[in-house]
Formats: sequence, structure tokens, C-alpha cells
Amino acid sequence: MTARRPDRSIATVCLSGSLPDKLEAAAAAGFEGVEIFENDLLTFDGTPAEVRAMCEDLGLAITIFQPFRDFEGMPEGLRVRAMDRAERKFDTMQALGTDLLLVCSSVHPAALPGADRAAADLREMAERAAKRGLRVCYEALAWGRHVSRWRQAWEIVRAADHPALGLCLDSFHTLSLGDDVDDLAATVPPEKLFFLQLADAPRLAMDVLSWSRHHRLFPGQGELPVADFLRGVMAAGYAGPLSLEIFNDEFRAAPSRRIARDGLRSLAWLEEQVGLAELPALPRLAGVEFVEFALDHESREDLARMAASLGFRRAGMHRSKDVELWRSGGANLVLNSEPDSAASERFEARGPCVCAIAFRLDDPERLVARAEALSYPVWRERIGAGERRIPAVRAPDGTLVYLVADLAEGERPIWEDDFHLEQDRADGGFLGIDHAAQAVAPGLMDSFALFYRALFGMEPDAPWELPDPYGLVRSRAFVGGQGAVRLPLNVSESGRTGTGRFVSALAGAGVHHIAFAAADAAEAAAGAVARGAPLLEIPANYYEDLGARIGLEEEELAGHAAHHLLYDRDAAGGEFRHAYTHAFRDRFFFEIAARGGGYAGFGAANAAVRMAAQRKTPRSRGDAGGEQ
Amino acid sequence: MTARRPDRSIATVCLSGSLPDKLEAAAAAGFEGVEIFENDLLTFDGTPAEVRAMCEDLGLAITIFQPFRDFEGMPEGLRVRAMDRAERKFDTMQALGTDLLLVCSSVHPAALPGADRAAADLREMAERAAKRGLRVCYEALAWGRHVSRWRQAWEIVRAADHPALGLCLDSFHTLSLGDDVDDLAATVPPEKLFFLQLADAPRLAMDVLSWSRHHRLFPGQGELPVADFLRGVMAAGYAGPLSLEIFNDEFRAAPSRRIARDGLRSLAWLEEQVGLAELPALPRLAGVEFVEFALDHESREDLARMAASLGFRRAGMHRSKDVELWRSGGANLVLNSEPDSAASERFEARGPCVCAIAFRLDDPERLVARAEALSYPVWRERIGAGERRIPAVRAPDGTLVYLVADLAEGERPIWEDDFHLEQDRADGGFLGIDHAAQAVAPGLMDSFALFYRALFGMEPDAPWELPDPYGLVRSRAFVGGQGAVRLPLNVSESGRTGTGRFVSALAGAGVHHIAFAAADAAEAAAGAVARGAPLLEIPANYYEDLGARIGLEEEELAGHAAHHLLYDRDAAGGEFRHAYTHAFRDRFFFEIAARGGGYAGFGAANAAVRMAAQRKTPRSRGDAGGEQ
Repeated sequence: MTARRPDRSIATVCLSGSLPDKLEAAAAAGFEGVEIFENDLLTFDGTPAEVRAMCEDLGLAITIFQPFRDFEGMPEGLRVRAMDRAERKFDTMQALGTDLLLVCSSVHPAALPGADRAAADLREMAERAAKRGLRVCYEALAWGRHVSRWRQAWEIVRAADHPALGLCLDSFHTLSLGDDVDDLAATVPPEKLFFLQLADAPRLAMDVLSWSRHHRLFPGQGELPVADFLRGVMAAGYAGPLSLEIFNDEFRAAPSRRIARDGLRSLAWLEEQVGLAELPALPRLAGVEFVEFALDHESREDLARMAASLGFRRAGMHRSKDVELWRSGGANLVLNSEPDSAASERFEARGPCVCAIAFRLDDPERLVARAEALSYPVWRERIGAGERRIPAVRAPDGTLVYLVADLAEGERPIWEDDFHLEQDRADGGFLGIDHAAQAVAPGLMDSFALFYRALFGMEPDAPWELPDPYGLVRSRAFVGGQGAVRLPLNVSESGRTGTGRFVSALAGAGVHHIAFAAADAAEAAAGAVARGAPLLEIPANYYEDLGARIGLEEEELAGHAAHHLLYDRDAAGGEFRHAYTHAFRDRFFFEIAARGGGYAGFGAANAAVRMAAQRKTPRSRGDAGGEQ
Repeated sequence: MTARRPDRSIATVCLSGSLPDKLEAAAAAGFEGVEIFENDLLTFDGTPAEVRAMCEDLGLAITIFQPFRDFEGMPEGLRVRAMDRAERKFDTMQALGTDLLLVCSSVHPAALPGADRAAADLREMAERAAKRGLRVCYEALAWGRHVSRWRQAWEIVRAADHPALGLCLDSFHTLSLGDDVDDLAATVPPEKLFFLQLADAPRLAMDVLSWSRHHRLFPGQGELPVADFLRGVMAAGYAGPLSLEIFNDEFRAAPSRRIARDGLRSLAWLEEQVGLAELPALPRLAGVEFVEFALDHESREDLARMAASLGFRRAGMHRSKDVELWRSGGANLVLNSEPDSAASERFEARGPCVCAIAFRLDDPERLVARAEALSYPVWRERIGAGERRIPAVRAPDGTLVYLVADLAEGERPIWEDDFHLEQDRADGGFLGIDHAAQAVAPGLMDSFALFYRALFGMEPDAPWELPDPYGLVRSRAFVGGQGAVRLPLNVSESGRTGTGRFVSALAGAGVHHIAFAAADAAEAAAGAVARGAPLLEIPANYYEDLGARIGLEEEELAGHAAHHLLYDRDAAGGEFRHAYTHAFRDRFFFEIAARGGGYAGFGAANAAVRMAAQRKTPRSRGDAGGEQ
């Protein structure tokens, strides 16, 4: 961190619970200040002086008191009332020990237009504030009645010309209107930039008021160019705190400490983007080295049988632990039944499940340092003599993400230290792990997004909607290393969808779908069928429609049908051929996937057929998958 | 039902599950036809001929096959492919045994503009269809690339001028754009009106595509003027089926039979609105006669103590059952501990809860007949000799709604038949039951809306959002009899809000809040405080803000504070004074409420303070409420 990092602040409205809960969560996460949102004070059964004392005890500055609404431009009788109201709020601010009030542009139906009148009102308010040593900043709400842009707000502040009156900028109010701050430095003197609020959001085509009130996100979780915005504001000489003001229904329903930690991480990431502070550099991701399963002996036997049916062979036994390595070409599965381990804890809580995934990247220790700087929990396993310790970080659901060095030709792979290897790598089979999808409870999605983006530098794909027969599934993939690591996240409000059922089985979130990259999908699927793999039966109607829709020849269609293969083609002609298995004990399933011509998706067009087929014959096959 | 009632049809996309599930649910609800939504066929692992046979077995006509997308206006090479695609879908239709295909206006980026070209394409398609005895109808999608209004679609159909080509109308696509069908009769000849799709929706300010794909509702559940639309279409001579086409995330996640039943009810209600069919007339609602609680003896004692603290007195014992009547003025509470009863079943499933509510209305038996016509379950209790049988209907959560005749002066009230009365009505106390609020799981909200609107004729208020400290609560009140019956419905996606917790405790839904109407709120609250009622403590900061915001005098503020009273004032000067209790065992709570000057709301402005205060001291008072 450099000396000039601005203070970090968060509005109490971002967090759930009572005012003391919120303050404690903000302090525990490491914020230096809080915005006191008035509603949180009104519902608190202590005095403003007690709030001040709590903040002092926690080392939190009160950066601003907000919001003061519907002030400027009121007709005469109401104008007097508005001034009285301001005086009463100044009393509260002095008891709180904060000197800055946020006034947002009026939405009152009786508010009169005209910058002169607004300037006169704000000037009087600032004069009254100044008498008490207080200050006022004026913010353009994106849906303000007469003032919705920061340039309009600035015209009023400029005309009012009072030292106790300045501007409050807010990334959401600016970016949601498609506006920017490119001319801020040329327009507003630095001493008039009193306060800065930061929020991101997904791009939604809805009214800006609802968008703002329910769907804001922390920087990096959404799609707005918040870093560009912040760069513009800093270039204009802003010297105050960076303050998060997020109205989000899910944040308000989530534990306040988790949300506060995510808020701090998002600011640290944003500061890095803008050059206000440094973090250990982002990794270069090279692939998924393995997926690890937590199993008991019975489920391990069943899963090994299912893996064998997909062409995997046992490649080694761990030197000191009850762990097997199964391998097909470049795809590695670790089957862990070690007692008293991270895996066994996971098994006890959830039954058979994916307990870890490993990324290959340039420098594991640098990633560990980055995780520590972002307060993501780091985990180091207990190891036997001569074994290599692989560092890991914990994803928001507790899944371990191991960090494995991407080896140059000839370097010694991790497996040779830890395993008695029975088989080496050059044996055909899969190219590697194409993608690993996670089912995520709705309230965890944004935490995952931040984890993959801020810690690993993965970027989100456009979101998809997948029609499960029992409700909607929303999917958004995070991709790193130019496609070396692909992680779709699936979320469903419905507990009856496949995703909803996985979320229940996995206690909130977990990897539920692992796709193996094949050079030739038909060959891989044919082998799997021959070995009795539980591949999904695809209805003939699907192939009939595929013929009508894409115009594949009958022969090709028949080949796909024979191999249980689904097919997709993108606008540029990229092709995707893929087949799925039934689920293993309702916990996870596998896919054989072959990409061609730069295809970058996941076959979303086929998801409805896949999901219906998975529901059609649940757990009725015992031959290969142990899915009784 | 009159002879000319159109057939009732529903699109398979409205319902959850596999295609056979959907067909069975539609038939069980009483639909005469289904639209086969193509995706449901593609994911079905049987032939179209098998679908045809299933429908025949179930007595369902296939009213249409849909959708055929992106057909008209394609550039030459793609045009040939589109025609081939049509021929393949005609094959499917013939196997299905349906003669009508829905073509919706193209959204393809390559689609060429121009009505002539579109007309030529559709004419050729119609000609090909006609050769097989099939027909085609063309629908303007509200977000179509070149065609988004029915008048544009009609110009194309008119120009194509083929007997096998007609128009498909859809209430959502028309009404979502603020359009109407006022000139339909003057514009389109009846024989060109091939098909009609009906959907309602809440008024949402979002892009029309997302609105349509996720938020459609059955007629009567939303806010669009669907009845006006249907009147216009029928006036134009439409003679086909009325078909529901609803894309709704919650419907797709809900049990298909419940949703199908609601669909049929909504059509019956809509037909009544438009004069296509009759139902026994709507009731005249006069009030809430009583609220009934399912209790064991221990919780009954506790609740009786809490009721006494609010000014209720035991007014009678049931002649044959273990049931007490508690009364304060016009407000009646029935405390039911009868074993082997509807109440005891409820108690066993949920613990202490509201198991019934009784409406006073003009003609209970006519309402029973209406309920039967709408397939709402009717319930008649077992009674003792000489007792009166009060009919009831079951709300979507299983709560009984008793139907009590509104008496003229001098008629014998129900209580005298069934109870040994210890006390008569003229004893001061509350005026009656002001409102009873229900906590409802998100997926049940629309079923409740239909129940209150279609069966009882209640109308929804504007929706409110209430900020609980642990998430958002959305509230929408249904009001009947000019305010005689007021029933707010509260829903929350968060399980951590008060509403979310009530929903869990009440197993999906239930009355969780009963407000008693007081002539003088201060007097009623003072009495309650004196008797030790567990009224919520309201923070001083609330009164400080009330003074600043509304400008009440200090003396009045102090009076409110002394009596735990919240205060609200509407734009017309109507006033609301109200106080709340803590919750009784996390199941329900009470309110003392006084309306003045025509105030019609529920004090939503104070909800945040109420909800925070209820979370502040949960279950810590044992003196009056038995809330250990």
C-alpha cells in the first residue's frame, strides 16, 4: 500500500442487521470510515452520542450523514420547513460528530425548477451549516426531478458559491445514465469535490430508480466502468475517502461480516486497477490441474467405476494418505478418502462431493500473497515427509482452490513427489479439464464473482438463462488465461431445478459438473458407451429439430445420436460437440466436450435438453455409475 | 356456463415438469386444449405421435404448435433454409395432429424490413401449409425487429391474402406497449382472427423482452387491462379458444397442478368480467368477524393472557368444543384447542398459529357456489346438535376462510348458537379487526392474489417495499367492501427477515399480524401498557425525525412516545396512529390501529422502525405475552 491510499468507507445501508452489527462488521473488515444512513439511526434505540462513541471505540470515522432529501426548490411555506428540518439534522450531526451532510437532488413533486433558486437554497443551508462548523455536499440523483447529472449539480454549487458547499459524486448515478466524468478535472476545482460514492451494477434494462435501489453491486462484481470513473475523479484532485454505497436486496439479507469483507476486497481491487494502491500481481492461469473428490470407500469405489467407464485409469496411490489419482491424458481426478482431513470434514458435512480444484498458474506463492492482501483465507495442508506442500485458498463456499506451478518442459510435476505413480501421462485420453461448473446459492453469487475476478483476474462472460423443467437457471462463466480455466457459475431461485437440488445437496454451493476436453467427441463418447458409461439419452426430437434449425446432414445427425452427442454452432462457425452423464448420487455429473473453430461457449442452447434428460431417469442405472 | 363459452387452452410452457406432467396437469385442471411449446417437445423422449395419443387420451385438443421464429424477411440463401425448416415443422405438426402454426415476427439481425417481402414469405408458407391442410398465424412480438404491433402484422397478413394465413393476437404484446385493440373490429375481418393468447403482468419499468419472459401472470393476477383487451377481440368476432401463455419463473418452479388450476380459475374470472360466462355473483364484504387460533392448552393460556393485556375478555365457551371466544368490542378472537379438529391438525403441523379467519358477507352460500365454480376447496366443519354450520373455503396455504352472514339489526349472531356467552358485545373496546396481514412464500403470492381477487372481488393496493434489517419485504394489500376487509400480503426472498421467519414457522404462509381498530389509539395503547401488554419500544430517534419530517409539536410527539405510538400522515391529511406488540412465539403479533381523515394505508413509512424493534428484544418478556 502506498501512503496516498484514500481512506476506505462503507455506507451502513450496505449491510444487514442493527446499527451496532453494521458498525462492528465494517470495523472488522478493516474499513476506516462509515456513512451513517439515516434510517439505520432512526431504528436504533440509542442516542446519536452513543453511536459516536461506538464508532470511536471501533476506530471508525463517520465520513458523512445521509441522505437529506427533497430540500432545494420548495415553494415558500415548505421552504421554511425544509430549513427547520435541516437545523434539526445539524443537531443530530453534531451529536454524531460528523461534519458532512449529503443532500441529494429533489424528487418532490412540488419542487420548483431553476438553478438560481436551488443555488440560493443551498447557499442558505451552507451558511447555516458553516455557523456550526458543518459542511454540505450536493449530489445529482439519476432520477432527480430537475437535477440528474453531476454537471447540473455543479452549476448549482458553483452559483451558490459558498465554502461550506461542495459536490458529491456517485459512480452509479453517473454511469447508469451512460454519462462519464471525462471533463470533471477541467470543470470542477478539487476543493469542491467533497465526497465520492462508489457502486457497480449489472447492466439491466429497467428504470434507474429500481436498478439503483435493488441491484447495485460492489466494484468488480458488476459491469459498469467504475475504474474509469474513479480514475477521472482522482485526476480531478479528489482527496476524500472512497465510500461504498450499495443498495442490494441480497446483501441486506446476507451476514454483514461477509458482505463487509467483500466490500473491502472490492475497494482494494479497484485501487489496484486505478493505481492508488498495489497488490501482488495477478496470476497467469494455465489450466485446471485436477479436481479432488471427498469420498468414503464405498463411494470411492463407485466413482472409480464411473471414471473408468469414461476412460480414466488409476494412475497412482498417495505415498502417505488414502488418496488415489485417476487419470485420462491431461485430466486428473483425485479421489480422497483420507480420514481426519479437509476432505473427510467435507464428506461428513455433505456426502460425496468435490472438495477441491487445482489451478495451474505461474507463481503459487505470489497468488497466496495476493489472497492474504485481499483477506481471502489461505490453507496449507498437513503433509508427509518428502511430500510437496501445495498451497490453497478457500472459495466462498469453502471449496479449496489449490495452486500448482505451471511447469516448464522437464520440471518435476507435483504427482511424482506425492504419489506412487502406476502410469505416466502419455497415454491418449482427454486433453484436460475443459470446464468445472459450480451450483451456487443466489446470495453467494456475487461473492464468487469477486473471488474469481479480484483474486484470479478472471473475466465474466455474458450471462445466460437456462430453462430447467422445474424453473430457471442463470449462468455466468468466469474465464481466465484465454480459456485455460473456465468456471461457469449456475444459480437458481427455484429449489426444484437441478441447480437448486445441487445447491441443497452441496449445502450452498459446490462444483457439480466437470467437463473433460476431448480431441474427438465422437470417439470419446463411443469409448464411453462401449465401457458402459451412464451417458444421457437424448430424445430423437432434439436431432429432428437440430436438422431443421442448423441444417446438419442426416448422416451427421445419426452419428451424433448414436454417440449421445449434442451439437452447437456459434455465429462465427465455431462448433461444440458434447455428451453428458447422469449425476453421481445427485452430487455432480461429467461431460465429454470438444471445441472447434474457436467456440467459446458451453452449449447453452442444449441445456434444456440436457436438464430434462437428467431428470428423466434419475438414479435408475447401477451398471457403471453406482447411482442407486 | 353458457353455450358460447370459448374453449380454454394453456401453453405447456406455463407449467413445470416433463411434457406428460404438463399435459396431465392441464387436463386435471379442466382445460380443453393445450398449446404445444416446441421446447417441451424437443426435451421429450417420445414421438410426436405419442404426444398426440396422450392428448387424445386426456381429452385435450392441441390448439397450436409454437413458436416458429425468425421466418419472414430472410435474405435469399437463408430464405430457402427457412422454408425447409417450415416443411420439417409441418411434418411434426401432422404427426402431432394439430393444424395451426404460430409464426412470431422476426428478431433475426439479418431480417430485411418491408411488408411486401414479409407478405410474400408468409404467403408462400401459407400455400405450402394449405397443401397439407395446415394453417399459419402471424403474431407481432413486442420486441420484433421490424414488426412489433398487431396493426403492422395485420398489414402483412392482409397483403399476403391467403386463406391459410391469419393473425394471432396476444394481450401481453399489445398491452405492454401501451397499445389496445379498440379498432380491431373495424380493421380485421373475423375469419382472419386465428388465435388468441392471454396473459397479464405487473406494471414493471423494464425492457419488454425480460418483462415478457419472466414476469407474465395469469389474467387477474397482474395490472394490465386484459378484460378490456378480450372484450375488444371478442367484439371483432374471434371464435377460437382462449389460450393462456405465461412465462413466469415462479410458475415454472411450482407444482404444475396448482398452477394449472390457477390458470383455469383466471380464465373463468376473465370470462365473467367480459360476459362470456357466468359465475355466482361476487360477495358484498362487510368485515372480518373473527380470527381463529390453533392452540394447545399451554399456548392458549399464554395467548389469553396476551389478549387480556390488550383489553380482551373471555366472552364465551363453545357448547360442544374446547374453544373459547375472547372479545373486545367488535373484535373477536377464537382460541381453539379442540382435539381431532381442523385446528388441531394445523397445530400439530405448525404449532400455535392462526388457522382461520372469518369474513362477514351478504350471502355465504352464494360464495360457496362461487368457490365451487372456481374449484376452490370448500370445507364444512363437523358440528354439535343445535349448532350452526359455518361454511368455509380454503386459502392457498390451507387457512380456512369462514363465511358468516352479515346480519341486519336484530338477527341472531352466530355466537349465540354455538357459545355459552358470558359477555355481550356492548362493552367498549376495539371497533373491530382493521386488517390481518399474511406472510407468504414467494411462490404462493400470485395464487393468493387470484384467490382474493377472483373469489372475493378484492382489489389490490399499490405494492410497497419495506426495509427489514435482514432484507427486503414486499407488501401488497387486498381490500374489499370499501375497506371493510383489508388483507396485506407480505413476501420476502430472504429467509432472515421477519416475514421470511414467519414463512418458515408457518410452513409457507399464514396470518402473522392482526390489527385491531381503535377509536382512540392513545387510549387503547395506554390501557394496554397499564395491563402490561408487550408493546414495542420505539427509539427516541424515530420521534426526533418525526418532528423534523412532519413538524408535529413536541407535546404531541411526547404523547406518542409515551404510548409507543407510531404516526403517519398521507398527502390528503389522513392520519394513522398505531402501536405493535412483540411477536407471540415467533408466530404472529398484534397492532392497535386508529385511522382518521380517510387514511387508507398501513403505516408503511414506519415499517422499518417496527421491524427493527421487533428484532431488538425477541422473546425476552414473559410477563404478559407468554413469549419465553
